[in-house]
Amino acid sequence: MKIESVDFFYLSIPEVQDIGDGSQDALLVRVRAGGYEGWGECEAAPLPSIAAFVCPMSHSACKPVAASVLGQPLDDRADIARINQLVRRNSLDLLQADHTLSGIDVALWDLLGKRLQEPVYRLLGYKRAYPKTAYASVLFGDTVQETLDKARRIRSAGYRAAKFGWGPFGLGSVNDDEAQVRAARAGLGSDVALLVDAGTVWGEDVSIAAERLPVLAECKVGWLEEPFVSGALHAYAVLAATANARTDFRVRLAGGEGAHDAGMARNMIDHAGISFVQIDTGRVGGITSATEVARYARARGVTFVNHTFTTPLALSASLQPFAGIEDAVICEYPVEASALARDFTHESLSVDAAGQLRVPERPGLGMSPHIDKLRQYLVPVEIRVKGRVLYQTPEL
Amino acid sequence: MKIESVDFFYLSIPEVQDIGDGSQDALLVRVRAGGYEGWGECEAAPLPSIAAFVCPMSHSACKPVAASVLGQPLDDRADIARINQLVRRNSLDLLQADHTLSGIDVALWDLLGKRLQEPVYRLLGYKRAYPKTAYASVLFGDTVQETLDKARRIRSAGYRAAKFGWGPFGLGSVNDDEAQVRAARAGLGSDVALLVDAGTVWGEDVSIAAERLPVLAECKVGWLEEPFVSGALHAYAVLAATANARTDFRVRLAGGEGAHDAGMARNMIDHAGISFVQIDTGRVGGITSATEVARYARARGVTFVNHTFTTPLALSASLQPFAGIEDAVICEYPVEASALARDFTHESLSVDAAGQLRVPERPGLGMSPHIDKLRQYLVPVEIRVKGRVLYQTPEL
Repeated sequence: MKIESVDFFYLSIPEVQDIGDGSQDALLVRVRAGGYEGWGECEAAPLPSIAAFVCPMSHSACKPVAASVLGQPLDDRADIARINQLVRRNSLDLLQADHTLSGIDVALWDLLGKRLQEPVYRLLGYKRAYPKTAYASVLFGDTVQETLDKARRIRSAGYRAAKFGWGPFGLGSVNDDEAQVRAARAGLGSDVALLVDAGTVWGEDVSIAAERLPVLAECKVGWLEEPFVSGALHAYAVLAATANARTDFRVRLAGGEGAHDAGMARNMIDHAGISFVQIDTGRVGGITSATEVARYARARGVTFVNHTFTTPLALSASLQPFAGIEDAVICEYPVEASALARDFTHESLSVDAAGQLRVPERPGLGMSPHIDKLRQYLVPVEIRVKGRVLYQTPEL
Repeated sequence: MKIESVDFFYLSIPEVQDIGDGSQDALLVRVRAGGYEGWGECEAAPLPSIAAFVCPMSHSACKPVAASVLGQPLDDRADIARINQLVRRNSLDLLQADHTLSGIDVALWDLLGKRLQEPVYRLLGYKRAYPKTAYASVLFGDTVQETLDKARRIRSAGYRAAKFGWGPFGLGSVNDDEAQVRAARAGLGSDVALLVDAGTVWGEDVSIAAERLPVLAECKVGWLEEPFVSGALHAYAVLAATANARTDFRVRLAGGEGAHDAGMARNMIDHAGISFVQIDTGRVGGITSATEVARYARARGVTFVNHTFTTPLALSASLQPFAGIEDAVICEYPVEASALARDFTHESLSVDAAGQLRVPERPGLGMSPHIDKLRQYLVPVEIRVKGRVLYQTPEL
């Protein structure tokens, strides 16, 4: 079969807030080939990602993503690998192309899985999917009390792990941050794993990050995530060495969600001293690149974890690349998603009483967009170049 | 003064060809503040870069670039640094933002230089600008004879160095590539420096690149550029070690043009074994980021070189960041630019009889766009979201 169409749908809640919640909008991708439909999602700014698909060619290494996808044969996983290579080569100088490719690649795997009647993780070569301990992923409260309350609710809900991030964390004094971390630990109790996400707030400033290590060690925080931007290899490596030199408790580092290709993630595994590499399938280039990172990480003793703060469709896509890796035991599970994310799919992905999450065993990603509900979130877009319509929101 | 407006102009020759010539289109940026105008250029796909400026906010770390620029105070270089930080933080998850920022940052420096009546390199802290040996930058000919003829013409024109790249190089057999490199060397003669650019053609395949080392050594090629994609740290490091182990002639590696922030370039300096770091001011985030890389490279014994294959405006912008570094003696000089690039500015940047190029001593970048000529290349664009016009080509 051949790829007949690739359609992008920009979805958004009516009023996007200036907060760290990445589920307020979404870029849904629909691929059609041979009578099948595959669905994917870019974890990316919708408008520039659509523009990267339809823009005119600038030169031989700066072509629109569409040029490497539309009309391509799609019969097996080698075809998906080939399409990935084509996009990377033909759109080498088009920065946004990696984010656009991500949603397309996810949709290609979904489509192939439906055609072959297999869940994606099996097409990736995994014999079985292991359940993961879901960590409830939430923003820090604006106040210490709010964080304490959130932590208590998470504990009551039966989660075995939780991550607090963004919000006021890292923006104020060391004392402020210490109070927030202690509140999270107090609310969770000593037997629920606590993770902390600094959301790149310290740029590349190692000393300001290092000042937070004592309270993180005292509260037995399982990882400190994104003290610095993705790719700040030197800053990560210095902080990791500082953390490893502590004799009380070793605070490990996590990062990588900003990686927009497998190479960037490999560099962090090789040079940043991280213990956990966090990959967003909707940014890194899709399931193909994420799986490459998962295998590379495993071979080097670094634990692969998904980065997902959005929809159940994105969550299923992000779980497939490491579903079959037994010792990668933890996964991110968004619990504060927007109405859009909650309405996204017919199926849901639920955490069981033991705090475990399982990848769907249905064909493809096993998640079907709830079209009737999604139409209300559709953001109409039109892009004209030289008077010609290059993109107009298609019918959903 | 405050930044009153930032306007983008998508310019293109009528028929863009599927070749490696990046000068076939351009994204011109005009910034206005306090009665002054600054001009910059993004070396980037125009449509997605414009979209990154105007797109709706997705969340707190995925805002349009406009949100961090419009209305900002602009009185000194600290303001430009602050605006850079704002964009990186507020548009952290908007991949294309770095390319959009690049042209804006260039225009901000141009504007500030005009206001302070100083060339940009002096605002960057350099006391004087040193002339650079311009290397004529051309594509390999489709045939060996064509490459030979090009090399002879470059020699006759008085250039002291030349770089051949892209075209058929690396796509065929080792013998094909050897014939091309020997033709380039034969045409240039033994006293003109020869550089070779593989244009990332080998992905991350070290062995296929290493097969070309003998002919590159035999022809005394000054550097092998971009055997691999930017950021392929491991592949670069292995090839560099292989090249350094040769006893006949040490072929040095050059790369980095794909770096879209200073951190990526620093990682290549630290971990890729490159001897030359090539930075495109129109991609790395502008003059601010390029200057950061130039200083980092110098402190580590790596030579900074501009990457420029487009307009005289982009060339002036790319020269400023290392104008005052005396031992960075070589610079890229495009000699096959399109009609658009040749028409771009009133002033030209010419190589003297000794093959040397000098940065303009005029205020700012010292280059003014030839508006009357550029209007014919203007590509009208309109972007509508929810029925509202977010972008429409402004008046030039």
